[in-house]
Amino acid sequence: MDVHSAGLSIADWRTIIDDAYRGTLQGPVSNLDPSLGTHFDAIFVGGGSAGRFGAAVLRSLGGRPLVLERWPFLGGSCPHQACVPHHLFSEAARELDQAQALQGRLWYPQFDPGAASILELVELFRAQRSGPHAHMNWQSAEQLGIEFVVNTEAEVLDTRTVRAGGHTYTADALVLATGSRAALPGIEGETLSGVFDYATLIEDLDYEPRRIVVIGGSKVAVEYGSFFRAVGRPTTIVSRSDLLTSAGPGRMDPDLRRFVVDGMRLRDVEVLEHSTATRIVGDRRVEGVEVLTPDGPRVIEADFVLLGTGEEPITESFASALPLVYDERGFVAVDARMRTNLDGVYAAGDVIGPPMEMFKSRRSGTTAARTIMGLDAEFHYDDIPDFLHTTYEVTWAGLTEDQARARYGDVMTIQVPPAGMALGDTSLPMAEGSMLYGFTLPERTGFQKCVIDAASRRVVGIHHAGYGAKTAFQYLHHMMTRPEGLTIDQLGDMNELYISSEYFIGYARLRASQAELTGM
Amino acid sequence: MDVHSAGLSIADWRTIIDDAYRGTLQGPVSNLDPSLGTHFDAIFVGGGSAGRFGAAVLRSLGGRPLVLERWPFLGGSCPHQACVPHHLFSEAARELDQAQALQGRLWYPQFDPGAASILELVELFRAQRSGPHAHMNWQSAEQLGIEFVVNTEAEVLDTRTVRAGGHTYTADALVLATGSRAALPGIEGETLSGVFDYATLIEDLDYEPRRIVVIGGSKVAVEYGSFFRAVGRPTTIVSRSDLLTSAGPGRMDPDLRRFVVDGMRLRDVEVLEHSTATRIVGDRRVEGVEVLTPDGPRVIEADFVLLGTGEEPITESFASALPLVYDERGFVAVDARMRTNLDGVYAAGDVIGPPMEMFKSRRSGTTAARTIMGLDAEFHYDDIPDFLHTTYEVTWAGLTEDQARARYGDVMTIQVPPAGMALGDTSLPMAEGSMLYGFTLPERTGFQKCVIDAASRRVVGIHHAGYGAKTAFQYLHHMMTRPEGLTIDQLGDMNELYISSEYFIGYARLRASQAELTGM
Repeated sequence: MDVHSAGLSIADWRTIIDDAYRGTLQGPVSNLDPSLGTHFDAIFVGGGSAGRFGAAVLRSLGGRPLVLERWPFLGGSCPHQACVPHHLFSEAARELDQAQALQGRLWYPQFDPGAASILELVELFRAQRSGPHAHMNWQSAEQLGIEFVVNTEAEVLDTRTVRAGGHTYTADALVLATGSRAALPGIEGETLSGVFDYATLIEDLDYEPRRIVVIGGSKVAVEYGSFFRAVGRPTTIVSRSDLLTSAGPGRMDPDLRRFVVDGMRLRDVEVLEHSTATRIVGDRRVEGVEVLTPDGPRVIEADFVLLGTGEEPITESFASALPLVYDERGFVAVDARMRTNLDGVYAAGDVIGPPMEMFKSRRSGTTAARTIMGLDAEFHYDDIPDFLHTTYEVTWAGLTEDQARARYGDVMTIQVPPAGMALGDTSLPMAEGSMLYGFTLPERTGFQKCVIDAASRRVVGIHHAGYGAKTAFQYLHHMMTRPEGLTIDQLGDMNELYISSEYFIGYARLRASQAELTGM
Repeated sequence: MDVHSAGLSIADWRTIIDDAYRGTLQGPVSNLDPSLGTHFDAIFVGGGSAGRFGAAVLRSLGGRPLVLERWPFLGGSCPHQACVPHHLFSEAARELDQAQALQGRLWYPQFDPGAASILELVELFRAQRSGPHAHMNWQSAEQLGIEFVVNTEAEVLDTRTVRAGGHTYTADALVLATGSRAALPGIEGETLSGVFDYATLIEDLDYEPRRIVVIGGSKVAVEYGSFFRAVGRPTTIVSRSDLLTSAGPGRMDPDLRRFVVDGMRLRDVEVLEHSTATRIVGDRRVEGVEVLTPDGPRVIEADFVLLGTGEEPITESFASALPLVYDERGFVAVDARMRTNLDGVYAAGDVIGPPMEMFKSRRSGTTAARTIMGLDAEFHYDDIPDFLHTTYEVTWAGLTEDQARARYGDVMTIQVPPAGMALGDTSLPMAEGSMLYGFTLPERTGFQKCVIDAASRRVVGIHHAGYGAKTAFQYLHHMMTRPEGLTIDQLGDMNELYISSEYFIGYARLRASQAELTGM
């Protein structure tokens, strides 16, 4: 199907994508300018965020990109199976959690654990996801002027040649942006019916889960486990290490982590740490999970198991044709310019490994594009802002308090509730999104901490659980990591929009005038 | 009651404040150090945000402040009658609006307009507001080391002397921070029972309103009107000008304003613009409002009227003793150092006039404190970030698109939904807080616009209706107004935390590589 110059609307694109899902439209959908031939400055193999953003920037710089994508839309796994449904489910979790917490108060009726349905939310997403998909195609064609072929498998033939939809395309450079998929942990029973990962949950769920086990201790486990429990399903998380420490010790401030994990337990998520799922039990369908806990072996009944046990790269379309070097985890190895070991071959996005975050995908794609176009571009992502959802938004950047104390002589913190005070002893931090809790269940309002190096007066770490601060952390992180940093004095001179989700500006102002900073 | 050195907890303070409300505790509650005498570096007359923050900074700079406050707590009208209850009500409005919009879908039952109660929310706030109050007293005494006397009227005797609670205190400087109150519009019937302002609503409401008229067209009218309607009450707003234009033409981008006002009408708020309330009708209790509309006179039935018709300064405690100069609206006139016309007399907070916002109160108080302590401090607030709530958070900073086009030759915008596209034609901007809408009622997800001067590549205006961006606008505004500004290139190089409430970083990245910027 050739759609070039057709000027398709978002609604037109949605029809095409839905037809492709249904199978009534097969074969490539091509937005190519035939007058320009089949040679490109770069071919992006994979049209997820890395490929799409990379192509947009290459085009902006005057190059001619081609994006090849097996799905009928650009945007990749995020709007299809990963971050977008996760955000939908996390928002549902927040609303359902509030409905349970406030039941019988104000306008909230008694909570009916049968009212909400995991299956219904999955089906809602599945039925409507082509809306955002269509926007991506429309934007890529109409606003960004990108040439692309979707709904077709690509096969890399050599470092300059790719075959897709019966055509052969050549380019001066290749960008491998094929993404990743959930990795199986390699335990008995992992292929039983009723065992899912974040992607198959979206594609295959056809019954309502009643009793849930989540295997894993990182973001995916915490986020989906919190969602399942908020819907009203008994949920057990089985984690080999302490929950949320697998990303490496010290990534998350212990006080923040405690608020998060205690908050999950307060909501009756069963969290089994230092525990190993040894076998998934069942006869065709999952019936339970055998777990080795510190207290001994246990079998947990379950009709639904979610695996949150990591990712592996998708390499089938290029692995046999290209003698690439991979890193120790199996991901394509690249340098800071996104160059692989092969001349003219770049990689970007999830296929180069963690963090599996949008900014890394997008910026690695645009870094590849800039490098290809001869610009001096590097992308380092060792110091990043980070977040997850439970029934809260949890966001952090920079150093934990412990890390800061190890690095600097004199560290002060601004913390709400104040250090040493029990959560329920104050209704603060009450803010945007936690006002109802502030006046009913003050222990639920949130937690926040700002870590400052007293000598330089610089903010070196920020930590938040609550609502509404996530977007702000993008900019705070930027200011903290610029060469001149962000001082408590600069922070205290900003104009807060009261009630800010984080109290950093107001509290900084209370302390900024001190010659010798003291915490609060 | 002398509480100095008592080391009171938040719970202790709460008992004191509740006793003061009940009248079982009368007379001043004094946190003074008797060993230091009755002379201070500065006396803050009024312990709202201006006085409290000013005193904290003066103390941090080595001075000795005294704060005098008529209420039994520090923090002022915000946590007592103004911004805190408003935020509670706006959060309730958001939740109730969603419950109505999604009724019959997912886990949302049919919406029962009788389930939610304005009176119950007011009573909840009234019963629990001493919690945050107590935190303020505790923090001021224990963390900030401020001396204060609360629960007592202050009387200024001259520019150096104040009397309160039977004692006379002297200082080298006075800071007048007595706040403001709602001004009556001067129309017949405005003192009938059932006519309220934002403060008397909190203090006096003792019945459930059934049919509501709001008089006024600014933030208070919009915010409370949206809340009343979300609770399920038929609500009419009567505004002399176009809604939300009274702050001055061009403060709010017309596209943003249209999204906001259309959204209110979509939710069945009756908005009468270019209309004047000529009389409030009733025999002791309000029964309706006579309105002159462009279509002629009309009587709107009402058992509750909210006046959102402006503010006047509270000056009784000092007006007769001090020959102050006032501005044309009756507020105390100050310069950028918060100096009045009288030597050693400063003013800060709502008593110096609009904007009645927290950052202005706090920063004017701290500016006065710095000036008193001999520092070179100025505070200008002509270019401020701003916000309001309907059932959305609405936030803006910098120039509107029209203002930017008038000032710069070549302006580009990044807008979602794209310019010219109907709201429901895309599910974007779907983000934190609008995910459920994105998959059910896409016309409700929000609106956002970023205005860029193409020549300098600087962001000159940002505009947002949705959820979760308000706190971020604090930092965006700071970066936009620093001398070097914020360019689209810097923005595009930041690390977004997907799905950000505003798409500015991601969209900037798509365009930043262009030599000649084009909008999207």
